[in-house]
Amino acid sequence: MSSPISGFSKLTKEEKIDWLANNYSADPENTKDILKKYWNADSKLQQLHDEFIENTITNFYLPLGVAPNFLINDRLLAIPMAIEESSVVAAASRAAKFWFDKGGFKAKVIGTEKVGQVHFIYIGNPEKLKAFFSELKPKLIASTGHLTGSMEKRGGGLLDIELRDKTSVLADYYQLHCAFETKDAMGANFINSCLEQLAKTLKEEAPNHSDFTESEKEIEIVMSILSNYVPNCLVRAEVSCPIEKLEIASSISPREFAQKIVRAVSIANVEPHRAVTHNKGIMNGVDAVVLATGNDFRAVEAGVHAYASKDGQYSSLTQASIEGNIFRFWIELPLALGTVGGLTSLHPLAKLSLEILQKPSAEELMQIVAVAGLAQNFAAVSALVTTGIQRGHMKMHLANILNQLGANEYEKKVLTDHFKENTVSHSTVVEGLQKLRQEN
Amino acid sequence: MSSPISGFSKLTKEEKIDWLANNYSADPENTKDILKKYWNADSKLQQLHDEFIENTITNFYLPLGVAPNFLINDRLLAIPMAIEESSVVAAASRAAKFWFDKGGFKAKVIGTEKVGQVHFIYIGNPEKLKAFFSELKPKLIASTGHLTGSMEKRGGGLLDIELRDKTSVLADYYQLHCAFETKDAMGANFINSCLEQLAKTLKEEAPNHSDFTESEKEIEIVMSILSNYVPNCLVRAEVSCPIEKLEIASSISPREFAQKIVRAVSIANVEPHRAVTHNKGIMNGVDAVVLATGNDFRAVEAGVHAYASKDGQYSSLTQASIEGNIFRFWIELPLALGTVGGLTSLHPLAKLSLEILQKPSAEELMQIVAVAGLAQNFAAVSALVTTGIQRGHMKMHLANILNQLGANEYEKKVLTDHFKENTVSHSTVVEGLQKLRQEN
Repeated sequence: MSSPISGFSKLTKEEKIDWLANNYSADPENTKDILKKYWNADSKLQQLHDEFIENTITNFYLPLGVAPNFLINDRLLAIPMAIEESSVVAAASRAAKFWFDKGGFKAKVIGTEKVGQVHFIYIGNPEKLKAFFSELKPKLIASTGHLTGSMEKRGGGLLDIELRDKTSVLADYYQLHCAFETKDAMGANFINSCLEQLAKTLKEEAPNHSDFTESEKEIEIVMSILSNYVPNCLVRAEVSCPIEKLEIASSISPREFAQKIVRAVSIANVEPHRAVTHNKGIMNGVDAVVLATGNDFRAVEAGVHAYASKDGQYSSLTQASIEGNIFRFWIELPLALGTVGGLTSLHPLAKLSLEILQKPSAEELMQIVAVAGLAQNFAAVSALVTTGIQRGHMKMHLANILNQLGANEYEKKVLTDHFKENTVSHSTVVEGLQKLRQEN
Repeated sequence: MSSPISGFSKLTKEEKIDWLANNYSADPENTKDILKKYWNADSKLQQLHDEFIENTITNFYLPLGVAPNFLINDRLLAIPMAIEESSVVAAASRAAKFWFDKGGFKAKVIGTEKVGQVHFIYIGNPEKLKAFFSELKPKLIASTGHLTGSMEKRGGGLLDIELRDKTSVLADYYQLHCAFETKDAMGANFINSCLEQLAKTLKEEAPNHSDFTESEKEIEIVMSILSNYVPNCLVRAEVSCPIEKLEIASSISPREFAQKIVRAVSIANVEPHRAVTHNKGIMNGVDAVVLATGNDFRAVEAGVHAYASKDGQYSSLTQASIEGNIFRFWIELPLALGTVGGLTSLHPLAKLSLEILQKPSAEELMQIVAVAGLAQNFAAVSALVTTGIQRGHMKMHLANILNQLGANEYEKKVLTDHFKENTVSHSTVVEGLQKLRQEN
């Protein structure tokens, strides 16, 4: 373990696994066996998955589950969710069922604008730069023509370029701030290719601008890159119903329940410690659909959480209100998603998930994902303000601990009954199982 | 598709798939075939994965790759990464190799404190509540005794409870703000169980407090839940070297490269649009290890991005400096991770990933994950300020498009050569392949 390896990426998959097992495993043969056990029997299918990234050694399994009964804008959908955390699919299904006979979920897209920036340094007179930019703008746009053709055919493209003077926050720093419409594509490659072309044109044309001094001609490109902060690529989802229909449990009246939800959300609005976990629960639902449909959850996470902090304090993404007799619960969140390109058609299960969702457009997928987030939050907050979160969690946690301890079906049954009335922890389950085994 | 299904969760896996395919697929048999193709041949292993969540229908594959040559605190590690995005593992490997002969990565844990809160409403005299809390505190702590035993044996437990008056932001709103140490466990279940107990004790004891009026005795618990915002569960990772060693490409001098990195980071510090994507790249590395080791990436994402906005404006998680002749690049981020409990030992590949990482403690895993994030950011920013991000991306993108179009090995070779000098887009690749096929 003391010397680095050269040319690792050029080894075959088997060679990579051998090297890894021989250098980093206490039991190399077992390590190799486990990794290979997760290979797909169909070698062509396996090769497809191997080639998605570099140095692939096997397939990491995330459970793909399905939450049925989602009524969204009057269409009934079953939502595929890829997620390793127990209770998420169950909670989504519960929320879907609850809202089904109350009109279901309403969702609408507020905007689809995506953003990219060319960040550059210009040391000189800002007015001269502005004049240069105004003159150059048509040429900048034209220079991306060879990249935008296919996107324009689909109704998208480069929408606008704005010169932004950022010298108040950093000396000599300016941006070309660009807006894009990428239709059903997430559009990262399209946007980045356009931006790199814009940067090239900007740099090449500056020396031809006669008003510039020699030093002003030397525009320095720092970087050209899309932004995952997309506050204008926004979707809203909502549920509402007369308060008396909020019959969630016999222990709590509909009105009291509605008030507790509103109170829990207002706490998430003012207390960042709570808001972070409140939104984390939303993202359980969001990411599960994002993953299942072959989208990039890191991009979505970054954009969503930055949006949650846009007013200076990290806050809740959902809101709740009682107006007259009507309870309303809604979410607004920025989502840059694709239903074509990338892994969406390349990963057979991403493609299948989109088929199960009835081949949505990117806008429709934004709506579905927002609904999944809202449903998840409704389920989580409902549990929190009534029975507490642990009852549901612990049921799954108990099942997992019993599996881990190798409990048989009889033991599982006895202990599941026992822990209906007792607190689950790893140690209490171990003790319970030991006691049961001694008794028998 | 017009009526909801009841009892879906009680169907067998086969029945669930049949229902889904028959109701939501244009080609039910094909849908069933694809889903089953992803089942593991070992039915016992498959059952284990099925039981992680509810309504599991198959395994969603994420590629598990490995990035070798990470020298972290003088230990050489190979890091398993579960991620679907191309270039992430390659970038990590490149950064690891680059820093290997410059002393590698240094990482240290700054704190491990976790947080949970009981949120409650108390309508009354705040001073009386304070007095009640001071008196009750030992009893509150004692009431969690049956839950904390096993954690205390491992050196963890409930560290402190603080009464926080939040009435300035929301009427009558108070918290029990609790600090926990959960050692090698992520600790969510432990913390939530303790909090629910604390809430129960608080509510039960209030009526016994003689100073309270009748209405003051009626403390209303809103909810009891851990926080994923963990600014005191913090890790720092760093690389540094004399500037002249920063030989990254022949086209750029080491000093110019260092300056460009510092400039790119300073832009991410002042411009939220850039910061979001800067940090998204960091999370590519972070989440890949979080996933591979069976941890919860939604929890990590929420905590990290909230931390990035803690000073009121969303900002960069990494920093870079040039002091004298030394270039320094570092990251600080909050990470609540576990190496025992949850899926870490239950998911065979999570368990194996931890074995490959030499069975790290939670603190060691925090260091490894922070390093993966730092490495990813170094690779991304390096590419951005030199060749641009698209060159690397497009190489993988081209391979994916060619696979999607069913290109054979000969066609792949010819077109890969062709696109070394030409811009990759979906349409240019389609055209290129058509042209090649017409020629032959």
